[in-house]
Amino acid sequence: MPGDHDPTDRAYAEALDAADPLASFRDEFVIADDDVCYLDGNSLGRLPKATEEALRRVVSEEWGTGLVRGWSRWIDRPAQVGDRLGRAVLGAGPGQVLVADSTTVNLYRLAAAALDARPDRGAIVADPADFPTDRYVLQGLAAERGRRLRRLRAVRTDAVARACAPGDVALVCLSHVDFRTAALAPLAEITAAAHAAGALVLWDLSHSAGVVPVSLDAAGVDLAAGCTYKYLFSGPGAPAWVYVRAEQQRRLRAPVWGWFAQRDQFAMGGAFRRADGVTGWLTGTPSVLGLAAVDEGIGLVERAGVEAIRAKSVALTELVIALFDAWLAPLGFELMTTRQAAGRGSHVAVRHPEAWRLCRVLAEQDAVIADFRPPDVVRLGFSPLTTRFAEAWTGAERLRRACAERRYERVESVRPRVT
Amino acid sequence: MPGDHDPTDRAYAEALDAADPLASFRDEFVIADDDVCYLDGNSLGRLPKATEEALRRVVSEEWGTGLVRGWSRWIDRPAQVGDRLGRAVLGAGPGQVLVADSTTVNLYRLAAAALDARPDRGAIVADPADFPTDRYVLQGLAAERGRRLRRLRAVRTDAVARACAPGDVALVCLSHVDFRTAALAPLAEITAAAHAAGALVLWDLSHSAGVVPVSLDAAGVDLAAGCTYKYLFSGPGAPAWVYVRAEQQRRLRAPVWGWFAQRDQFAMGGAFRRADGVTGWLTGTPSVLGLAAVDEGIGLVERAGVEAIRAKSVALTELVIALFDAWLAPLGFELMTTRQAAGRGSHVAVRHPEAWRLCRVLAEQDAVIADFRPPDVVRLGFSPLTTRFAEAWTGAERLRRACAERRYERVESVRPRVT
Repeated sequence: MPGDHDPTDRAYAEALDAADPLASFRDEFVIADDDVCYLDGNSLGRLPKATEEALRRVVSEEWGTGLVRGWSRWIDRPAQVGDRLGRAVLGAGPGQVLVADSTTVNLYRLAAAALDARPDRGAIVADPADFPTDRYVLQGLAAERGRRLRRLRAVRTDAVARACAPGDVALVCLSHVDFRTAALAPLAEITAAAHAAGALVLWDLSHSAGVVPVSLDAAGVDLAAGCTYKYLFSGPGAPAWVYVRAEQQRRLRAPVWGWFAQRDQFAMGGAFRRADGVTGWLTGTPSVLGLAAVDEGIGLVERAGVEAIRAKSVALTELVIALFDAWLAPLGFELMTTRQAAGRGSHVAVRHPEAWRLCRVLAEQDAVIADFRPPDVVRLGFSPLTTRFAEAWTGAERLRRACAERRYERVESVRPRVT
Repeated sequence: MPGDHDPTDRAYAEALDAADPLASFRDEFVIADDDVCYLDGNSLGRLPKATEEALRRVVSEEWGTGLVRGWSRWIDRPAQVGDRLGRAVLGAGPGQVLVADSTTVNLYRLAAAALDARPDRGAIVADPADFPTDRYVLQGLAAERGRRLRRLRAVRTDAVARACAPGDVALVCLSHVDFRTAALAPLAEITAAAHAAGALVLWDLSHSAGVVPVSLDAAGVDLAAGCTYKYLFSGPGAPAWVYVRAEQQRRLRAPVWGWFAQRDQFAMGGAFRRADGVTGWLTGTPSVLGLAAVDEGIGLVERAGVEAIRAKSVALTELVIALFDAWLAPLGFELMTTRQAAGRGSHVAVRHPEAWRLCRVLAEQDAVIADFRPPDVVRLGFSPLTTRFAEAWTGAERLRRACAERRYERVESVRPRVT
């Protein structure tokens, strides 16, 4: 950010928008109310206009008119859309990615496969600050299969190497971007450290896929999973994805033996014979509507390019950190996200004792949708294909005002079930 | 069927349509080509018009406009739609049904839970003629957990009692309606026989839910699962459902510990504490679009009533069996489906050495969509809310002609991957 510009001047953010090579992408999304500052695309990405049309087509034409004949097209979609995701987003060659099931189910089945492949190793290394479903899935598998969960104190290469040093670790399971702090883990280095200790590695890329460049093949990653409804714009509960490195596809045993994983599926043979390649990692009937939405979402990211998206993401978080320094720090906010651009994803987390009530004030009075995370975190998320610099600026400015004017004092402090 | 009517006279089928109290339901579905005989609603049900509109609403309004705020509505949908399914279709009181995940994943997690609850019993009883995914899931679990699969030769109460007699059976897992023969199992009697032997019971209701009355509560069923894209009209790959009997919900351990099963989900606490009730059987983020479609499909069945649907289903299969006798038996076809209406579901299976080529002739030349099942079965499926008697009649008549004219001889005999 040039020193001769004042980030607290809205004109500065507007100038960044004017120079933004990705600015026109926003027109490809449904923006129902241009005044709403949507800083929660890291929970649920916006709806692409093309997805509305793709869903109408798959519902009314492919299902409504084509009926069951549609399966001649649909049957290959999990692998086709997976290949596109691999190529455009994950740095994965063909035949290693599937779009199917939920992140939770995928984490379960990949982690189970990894544990089964290391029967003589009693430990799983995981981050106690990781997203709940990751932690719970591992807790369940550890309890079921008599493994110990070893808590990692910092997601750094040396910490992983230390945690793996006893030589008893079957699996290291971590998130690429921390869902609260936005800390970006050194994926390749940690993968190498875990491998050096004989462990397999499973990465959750829910908070990085589509917004941070990833090279799963080059990094030697064994297994990865993630959702598609954040930076891949695929809608609430859209199917998630799995990556199973080619060389691990036969070595590891998929726990759920479903009919979509059967060699010569429609021969419906008596014994399960797992299909070659990543197909052997399918489970049951995939969500055809969901796949159509995922395909459209990936298409937008593919066209923009993850490198360009990352550049704008960094610029957005830089702007907001500058505004944090100018506006929020003096009001008692604490920055949880690193100031090192290379070490963070696409959101900025700030702490404040009144975080929950501030989020309510923003939503109810100021048309700012941000995310509260217990106990005291406000997440400001930036989705470069839809978030304008001026929108990020306005969100930060409204947060400043809501706090400075102490408007949160007039809000109930009872927290809802859903945030 | 009155003796003084000739079923081979089309006027007879037309008279049945004229007297059909459910006839008007067909108008509530998208019928792109009225001349197509769609006899494969047991693979994929037709598209309800209301579903087109419901999906448009959930996509464009709830997601596009509401954005992440939609979760305040969506979060309860798996249980809400599950309760409706339980009430309208499954004979299940509230708090026991969830709409989530795929049939395959649901069979896996329910069967795993049952096996874990009977650690000292080494056998699983299953039908080697069951649908592939059921068999493969059980094969995988048996291999993983060191259990024996005991093949059941006939899905009858005495056969189940015999298979369970050694007292070593952890789980009996069967389909209510056989996907090939349409044989309808005596669900309550088999459940009682399995329980008498100390086994748990898991029923797959994919081919009966919505077309055969079911009383899971009254029958004492422990666990059940099924799809929603056949007689529940929810679209390709729509989310499936699980039933977990109230008294088993805490006794059994759900294997996949996902964040949607966590008590106080959005507190995001450190340790997994399973939610009370059926919520503890959720896994990850549910498909919001899929749930909207399932809800609409159930709504149609609820309005028609499963008893009325069953009555028409029986009349449709009676008609086609009469036509089989008149037309198909003389051409060398064999009836696989029982003549006892009480013992069959909503399709009629016929065998013929040229079954595969006949299905191709029907699809390509005669606008009849029926289902081929290896090695030699033609399935004629009847979905009472959309299938007319005249449509069933025409389908049987075109099958007769295709065979009598030996038109299959001019068709390639290579089978496709997808049928």
